[in-house]
Amino acid sequence: MSSTMKSKVIGIDIGYIVTTIALVDIRGTILALDSFMTANYPQINSFVEQICERVVLLAEANGGFDTVRSVGVTAASANYKTGSIENAVNMPWKGEIPLALMLRDRLGLAVAVGNDAHGTALGEFSFGSAHGMENFVVISLGHGGVGSCFFSNGHPHLGCHGFAGEVGHTCVIKDGRQCTCGRKGCLEEYTSERGIIQTAREIMEESDEPSLMRSLPELTSMAIGSCCDQNDKMAWEVFRRTGYILGIGLANYASITNPEAIILTGEQTQVYKWLGPSMEESFEQHVFHNMRGKVKLVVSTLDNRERDVLGASALAWTVKEYSLFL
Amino acid sequence: MSSTMKSKVIGIDIGYIVTTIALVDIRGTILALDSFMTANYPQINSFVEQICERVVLLAEANGGFDTVRSVGVTAASANYKTGSIENAVNMPWKGEIPLALMLRDRLGLAVAVGNDAHGTALGEFSFGSAHGMENFVVISLGHGGVGSCFFSNGHPHLGCHGFAGEVGHTCVIKDGRQCTCGRKGCLEEYTSERGIIQTAREIMEESDEPSLMRSLPELTSMAIGSCCDQNDKMAWEVFRRTGYILGIGLANYASITNPEAIILTGEQTQVYKWLGPSMEESFEQHVFHNMRGKVKLVVSTLDNRERDVLGASALAWTVKEYSLFL
Amino acid sequence: MSSTMKSKVIGIDIGYIVTTIALVDIRGTILALDSFMTANYPQINSFVEQICERVVLLAEANGGFDTVRSVGVTAASANYKTGSIENAVNMPWKGEIPLALMLRDRLGLAVAVGNDAHGTALGEFSFGSAHGMENFVVISLGHGGVGSCFFSNGHPHLGCHGFAGEVGHTCVIKDGRQCTCGRKGCLEEYTSERGIIQTAREIMEESDEPSLMRSLPELTSMAIGSCCDQNDKMAWEVFRRTGYILGIGLANYASITNPEAIILTGEQTQVYKWLGPSMEESFEQHVFHNMRGKVKLVVSTLDNRERDVLGASALAWTVKEYSLFL
Amino acid sequence: MSSTMKSKVIGIDIGYIVTTIALVDIRGTILALDSFMTANYPQINSFVEQICERVVLLAEANGGFDTVRSVGVTAASANYKTGSIENAVNMPWKGEIPLALMLRDRLGLAVAVGNDAHGTALGEFSFGSAHGMENFVVISLGHGGVGSCFFSNGHPHLGCHGFAGEVGHTCVIKDGRQCTCGRKGCLEEYTSERGIIQTAREIMEESDEPSLMRSLPELTSMAIGSCCDQNDKMAWEVFRRTGYILGIGLANYASITNPEAIILTGEQTQVYKWLGPSMEESFEQHVFHNMRGKVKLVVSTLDNRERDVLGASALAWTVKEYSLFL
Repeated sequence: MSSTMKSKVIGIDIGYIVTTIALVDIRGTILALDSFMTANYPQINSFVEQICERVVLLAEANGGFDTVRSVGVTAASANYKTGSIENAVNMPWKGEIPLALMLRDRLGLAVAVGNDAHGTALGEFSFGSAHGMENFVVISLGHGGVGSCFFSNGHPHLGCHGFAGEVGHTCVIKDGRQCTCGRKGCLEEYTSERGIIQTAREIMEESDEPSLMRSLPELTSMAIGSCCDQNDKMAWEVFRRTGYILGIGLANYASITNPEAIILTGEQTQVYKWLGPSMEESFEQHVFHNMRGKVKLVVSTLDNRERDVLGASALAWTVKEYSLFL
Repeated sequence: MSSTMKSKVIGIDIGYIVTTIALVDIRGTILALDSFMTANYPQINSFVEQICERVVLLAEANGGFDTVRSVGVTAASANYKTGSIENAVNMPWKGEIPLALMLRDRLGLAVAVGNDAHGTALGEFSFGSAHGMENFVVISLGHGGVGSCFFSNGHPHLGCHGFAGEVGHTCVIKDGRQCTCGRKGCLEEYTSERGIIQTAREIMEESDEPSLMRSLPELTSMAIGSCCDQNDKMAWEVFRRTGYILGIGLANYASITNPEAIILTGEQTQVYKWLGPSMEESFEQHVFHNMRGKVKLVVSTLDNRERDVLGASALAWTVKEYSLFL
Repeated sequence: MSSTMKSKVIGIDIGYIVTTIALVDIRGTILALDSFMTANYPQINSFVEQICERVVLLAEANGGFDTVRSVGVTAASANYKTGSIENAVNMPWKGEIPLALMLRDRLGLAVAVGNDAHGTALGEFSFGSAHGMENFVVISLGHGGVGSCFFSNGHPHLGCHGFAGEVGHTCVIKDGRQCTCGRKGCLEEYTSERGIIQTAREIMEESDEPSLMRSLPELTSMAIGSCCDQNDKMAWEVFRRTGYILGIGLANYASITNPEAIILTGEQTQVYKWLGPSMEESFEQHVFHNMRGKVKLVVSTLDNRERDVLGASALAWTVKEYSLFL
Repeated sequence: MSSTMKSKVIGIDIGYIVTTIALVDIRGTILALDSFMTANYPQINSFVEQICERVVLLAEANGGFDTVRSVGVTAASANYKTGSIENAVNMPWKGEIPLALMLRDRLGLAVAVGNDAHGTALGEFSFGSAHGMENFVVISLGHGGVGSCFFSNGHPHLGCHGFAGEVGHTCVIKDGRQCTCGRKGCLEEYTSERGIIQTAREIMEESDEPSLMRSLPELTSMAIGSCCDQNDKMAWEVFRRTGYILGIGLANYASITNPEAIILTGEQTQVYKWLGPSMEESFEQHVFHNMRGKVKLVVSTLDNRERDVLGASALAWTVKEYSLFL
């Protein structure tokens, strides 16, 4: 059977705020982009319809729908093994959403659905800092949580039920802060932006020493960082404590998985300048001694506006091309 | 080239005390066994010579040396990726011992060398509770330490430098007990037999309430367990605390790797009767919520006298048959 | 979740004549066996019912149904990727039979279905001559056809649609004998028992020299072989020609896959004594020169009565344990 | 350890005539190119020196040598498993050349060496028509030979000794044309340009009918093709016969490996316009019936001047980054 190969895929990233759709070629060039507000479609059916309409329009305007090989979708709480979004906490749609099935039925294309961190790891592996690595960890430090995925022997490790990589919910402080997940002492309660702000509050309450942080109109990790730039001692203490705990969490992760590198992504990498030094020191101090000095800690160099849809596009290539007639 | 296949391997387990050599067939039947005191050969050369002599004798007495396909060796601090024992703490030979090379040169057979936990995981995968599992964890609770290895997608995850699985040196108590490795708060400081005894001592010091533990001639985990059998409240508290911390450590491990099962082996499984209930409760309490009730916790059912050499024999099958003439 | 692991599986081999059911443990010990005539159940529903009844009885009589982990089934024309028997030529049931689904629904257990050669390869890998090999070929020389499966990098190579390994239908003689498959010159037209008999007929027609073959009551490959034992020149010529062509077919296979070994199984290995020498000579003559003398040619040493159900049992371990409640 | 990742590799293709060196980024953008005549360096040491000098110059002129991660080299008869060129027929250097070792010693970088077809397959997988495919075949139709490599389950299948993919030396015509390799009837004796020319000669000798081919100044496959464009019956017969045999060879390959696609590359794809139709017809006629209409036959769409170094660059990413200090 003589054929022409389809050389483009659709990458879709569903964020709490924005859903982005990209047409991407094999080498990670984004050929076209579209996006809309996720919250505008609180009904899953109309959300899926909206995606499909825009995918078709984007493809038709850029070479034709029949040049599209497959679709990759990333979303929080999505599970590659089931193709579903499962009980996403901050999404408008509750329960189990069989998104891959819904999209495949409507688009007639093969669809892969995976969680954010899975997509990010594939993106770094295909186009970023993890290219060529068999074993690595990707950590996404976000506002609300800490996501992660690691590769084992050149393949994403998703685990038995597709839930692996939940380092954000490993317990780093026995009987520590109450986490939104119901447990105590979870890493993300200390190292997400929420956690950093909470630490800042605790430090301010511990004494009544002066600090620039006290007069910030809004406590954000960036604002705390800019206090550091003015040599605010208490602001530095926020990042020292956060870095120390993040260093423990990553060291534990590394002691278990022995990665070639840990790649940091997510909006909180914008405070890496202040967070990084104490994190790295704590990491080296807590990691299994044979790995000391051997695990690279790097910040992702992929473009922030491209990372998520690139990861989703990489996911699209993991499914077999689908046709009703094959 | 018409050939007869070699259907037996040599499995060697180097323990601190005893080195055991077994001739094992494909199905895990131990055809012959030999052993000697490890400490009798403090020079690595004479130790290797001793192994080789006994391997040849064992093989010649049981079908002939030329029916042996390959050799697998397990030892603490051995690294499959280098074939060496690397800075073993309690072994008589210091530094880096290129054991695979030394044995291959002398025996003329392919040799695989791996650490204890790697061998144990292969043994459980080949002949035990992990048979048929793609993703699982093996934990070995010993007197002095906690070893571990996990499988990812049907293969052992050794990590970038061969050091993966060091859950025993993950930090479970921030700024906790001083570990022999130089760090603080390592899991094995609480959950190895040494750790259990230390916990018993601490509990006895916390109060002057009576306890059967106070009159034990020697504090061992088994002795503490037998106090439990006589309803000693403080003895139960030892296992409650140990189980709680072990539950956290294993929950963290599971949250990262999402295994189908965690299989417990090692001499400390003899106290599982007392340790298990609190460990399981703590595990379910600390594991990532989507995995609750889904990760099997099981004690290895392999014969204690066979487990180590079976694991070593499984390792022997992972190397390609070697011949000077191929 | 504390658990006991299930340590037995059911292996079922569906042959044209007999269907065999075995209860097998992890190490390949057959704990119990049952069998019935396949043709007695020309309706697929009653055939499936018959299997289920016997599986339950076998399990209940040997430790209980709830000690069974999963089920593996081998049959001609079965496809592991779909779990179906697809257009089997000599089976009573036509079209596509979703056997894995039918059995899983009725038994409530995970079920793997694969073709004969896939099962045989897994059996040799788990319990036979291919143990420890990353790359090997299994060839089954049967009465009517030649089946095959090869391993690549330690895993069965099933190909894109699950149809790989059809060396029996590679064309070895351009515009040669008409094959039942519709093509011409297929390897199995020369090297199955049917092909051997056809060659014997052709040789007898080529001349009117005397031959013991001419007075055989029935031409079978064994009967022709016994003529060889009496130094019948024409009988030897049958195996010479067959071996020459089989040698080409296997050499082509090896030049493409470069296996460590080619393992021969199937009823026609009973004539290997006569077929082997010319096959081996032709193989060495036709294989890619760098592989000469390096590819082992071996006859399976597994017990004929056990081979098929052992392979089916190995297949059973490739599927994840299934439960409605997990 | 905080680090910057190296995001470029060197891809080197050693051809009989020209050796090309490229600096390539992760996404397959060729940043700089250099080349020299292979035959100018008949001594392997001076050839290696020449490569190293040019690699250093190229890197220094384009971002610095320390931004280069690793080196990939493709050459005929190179073996990825040994890192050596082994008995290359048309190269100036005889015997076994440990090229990977020689380059690594001089450059201080990790080096992968593989044969042409291995590189081509990796190139198609990374940047071309095979992207996203788990199972596919790449065939290179050259002037003198037919090279090939196939992927199994997402990985290159190199076989036990690294020699897999030698479809060019499968026997398609029993006792056929004498091959340069010593055997008879090899596919490449019919389907390389040499083979096509030989077929043209045979056809001209079979009769004394007129043909434009008879007055060609030089018989080349392109020249024969242009005769087809003028409706020369005998020229068409050349491609009909060639296509028929190539169809058999590829069908046999597909029946064994069941690929999603067969991707054709190499200089002889320039005659695909004439060769393709009969090849495709013969392929469908000879492939295992269940695969009919399911295996895509496609011509590579990668740029001819880039293909080889892109493949070599893809090879460079398969080795672990190397440093004397890690």
